[in-house]
Amino acid sequence: MAVSLNRRGICDFVSDEELTKIEPQVSLVTKQLEKQLENTGWHNLPRDFDKDEMKEILEAAAEVRTKADVFVVIGVGGSYLGAKAAIEWLRSSFYNEKETPKIYFAGTGCSPSYLNEIVNLCKDKEVYINVISKSGTTLEPAIAFRVFKKLLEQRYGTEEAAKRIFVTTDKAKGLLLKMAKESHYRRFVVPEAVGGRYSVLTPVGLFPMAVAGIDIEKIIDGAKEAFFHLSKENFWENESMLYAAYRNCFNRKGKRIELLIGFDPDFRFFAEWFRQLFAESEGKDGKGVFPVAQIYSTDLHSIGQFVQESGSLMFETVLDVKDIQNDMFLAEEKEDIDSLNFLAGKSLSFINRKIFEGAVQAHIEAGVPNIILEIPRLCEHEYGYLTYFFEKACALSALTLGVNPFDQPGVEAYKSKMFNLLGK
Amino acid sequence: MAVSLNRRGICDFVSDEELTKIEPQVSLVTKQLEKQLENTGWHNLPRDFDKDEMKEILEAAAEVRTKADVFVVIGVGGSYLGAKAAIEWLRSSFYNEKETPKIYFAGTGCSPSYLNEIVNLCKDKEVYINVISKSGTTLEPAIAFRVFKKLLEQRYGTEEAAKRIFVTTDKAKGLLLKMAKESHYRRFVVPEAVGGRYSVLTPVGLFPMAVAGIDIEKIIDGAKEAFFHLSKENFWENESMLYAAYRNCFNRKGKRIELLIGFDPDFRFFAEWFRQLFAESEGKDGKGVFPVAQIYSTDLHSIGQFVQESGSLMFETVLDVKDIQNDMFLAEEKEDIDSLNFLAGKSLSFINRKIFEGAVQAHIEAGVPNIILEIPRLCEHEYGYLTYFFEKACALSALTLGVNPFDQPGVEAYKSKMFNLLGK
Repeated sequence: MAVSLNRRGICDFVSDEELTKIEPQVSLVTKQLEKQLENTGWHNLPRDFDKDEMKEILEAAAEVRTKADVFVVIGVGGSYLGAKAAIEWLRSSFYNEKETPKIYFAGTGCSPSYLNEIVNLCKDKEVYINVISKSGTTLEPAIAFRVFKKLLEQRYGTEEAAKRIFVTTDKAKGLLLKMAKESHYRRFVVPEAVGGRYSVLTPVGLFPMAVAGIDIEKIIDGAKEAFFHLSKENFWENESMLYAAYRNCFNRKGKRIELLIGFDPDFRFFAEWFRQLFAESEGKDGKGVFPVAQIYSTDLHSIGQFVQESGSLMFETVLDVKDIQNDMFLAEEKEDIDSLNFLAGKSLSFINRKIFEGAVQAHIEAGVPNIILEIPRLCEHEYGYLTYFFEKACALSALTLGVNPFDQPGVEAYKSKMFNLLGK
Repeated sequence: MAVSLNRRGICDFVSDEELTKIEPQVSLVTKQLEKQLENTGWHNLPRDFDKDEMKEILEAAAEVRTKADVFVVIGVGGSYLGAKAAIEWLRSSFYNEKETPKIYFAGTGCSPSYLNEIVNLCKDKEVYINVISKSGTTLEPAIAFRVFKKLLEQRYGTEEAAKRIFVTTDKAKGLLLKMAKESHYRRFVVPEAVGGRYSVLTPVGLFPMAVAGIDIEKIIDGAKEAFFHLSKENFWENESMLYAAYRNCFNRKGKRIELLIGFDPDFRFFAEWFRQLFAESEGKDGKGVFPVAQIYSTDLHSIGQFVQESGSLMFETVLDVKDIQNDMFLAEEKEDIDSLNFLAGKSLSFINRKIFEGAVQAHIEAGVPNIILEIPRLCEHEYGYLTYFFEKACALSALTLGVNPFDQPGVEAYKSKMFNLLGK
């Protein structure tokens, strides 16, 4: 079991009796979800991942890795967070300072200085781009694509530029597809039934990950394992059902904020991916648990005070990675001038684990429950598993809450006002 | 007025009558605060900033800028967030990819892979370090300092290493001071009465900022201007009092989450600095508004759905930077294949502003109030002003709430458990 839910930080807050009462609801929506997604969607995707498509992605990634100095990924929301998360957590948040090709994410907003920075970082570099949009009409990536398309065409000419542009879009329709066909860009497909925030295990996430040197076949293997594990009908043995149940129990008790906790700065964008997944799936019709990301121990020195003394609205979901690679050991010093020799010979991962244990104990005592999700180690396989786990748990959590996990009607509200203001 | 509070997104939620009722409380605590901090603390600091100290910081920074390839800043919480925030927002979040010396922040947590990464990035580089801790006993920076001290001593010998180590600590006491004296490290002082989260306008924040090429004299000038502006006794003309009043009004109406919004990815760590400031100052005794950071429009595509339809617990504080430097204009294309020619000739800052307006309108209609803080432009002067503004507003907000803005008793809870588990 690649993700295992440890209940020691929950049992004081949610009894087995309470779980027994919510179990039929969760089991019911699980059957509904599986039926709804039987032949389509992200649900079966890892099991049925097309071998030819995998080969195409790997070949394109190998080409970019050989030829590019800079790879610009253009997309917003679900079209960038999954890949960015994987690159930072599986490779490093220092990836661009030590690896090639450098990977920049553009079209994630409309800041001119940010876009100018990326344009400047492309100067005198061999540039390839991947524009990701189901429709091609989302404003921010469309603007960034216009900018980078022009940059490439001016630098390399139209024909050569076209060889450096990869498009990830719908198979059959949309503005971006039309552009790709007319200009003969190479294409990857976002499956029609897969919404942006559930698309990381499609070419949307996988192609940029592969360019970063991540073994995407292992990612899909892990997700496939999760698909089978999390298809178990027995509520008490199915971690995605249990997680959905606990979230709903806490929500019903008035705990409206979930802090997702990791113990490594490289975890930052995985948490952002998680935030979009849950906020956009659940936050509708006045309902939902608001997801917030924290890095410990860093944030124990900033928001820790609040959690400890004013955390009544909160529960924490803690990712506990068991086997830490790339560890470091504290050396003994002859003169113990900094009083740290009591830790000599200890590893930082050991110390980090004691911080984790101390925080869990202290927060539980303060009335903040801790859902501990144990992961054997951080590697491609487990990453794929964890991604699939959260996607399924999120859909189940939203359905148990009584909302549709797959729409986002509220996102249109500001957009229609904005387009009005822009005179469109 | 460098920070101006625009009420158009609040007036539907908090009436002038309501403000009139809270005004005496805010005015009272303002007098208390000013009396308490009359001769000490961060309050008068910008006005009385020591010229000799400024000169020392600038000279040390000039030396590091000339000689170092890599500058490692060691500190956690308030000892790093202010400098990191300024470097990203005033220079760039891509700073390390284009500038020298590269600046890495270590000791911000206990992740071994993160610390290993920084050690590896120091390979074959000229390294200088600045360790920042009032006591020297905070675990994470103490560990990082032991690692980097050894690295420098092994590479350069003890004597030369000592020339490359700058210590920012208490003037009269503590373990780090003792180490600094014994090894003849150069020193900067954290004023005794200034707590970590209020220390950015001391050498704690200013020295790393100066190494990054930020004009810290202008930062102090801006803060000094804020000191005088925000000393106005008239509640209705004092933006720090008004902001503290509105936050408390919203809190009393059950709006327990504040989203701090910026429109540029470079804003990320300023928001983290803000989060520590407010969470650690207010989050005690079951009270407080929980601060969360958002970057728009990016996060409109992720948590925007939640704000729009389930934001009843929230209000937003939006930083509206008026004059955007480093702008970009969208070019017209002969063939309008991407349907963006309706924006040709428009700047990205213009489009970003329409996104801002659209989001404000949509969120207000959804019942989420918007406190709009207008800033003329982003530069050192305004940054110093804004920093001082938030420090003063935070202290006033906490005092109005009935808590001490300057302690953090809850932070000890997990620490004592952790030290127990570590066998100390």
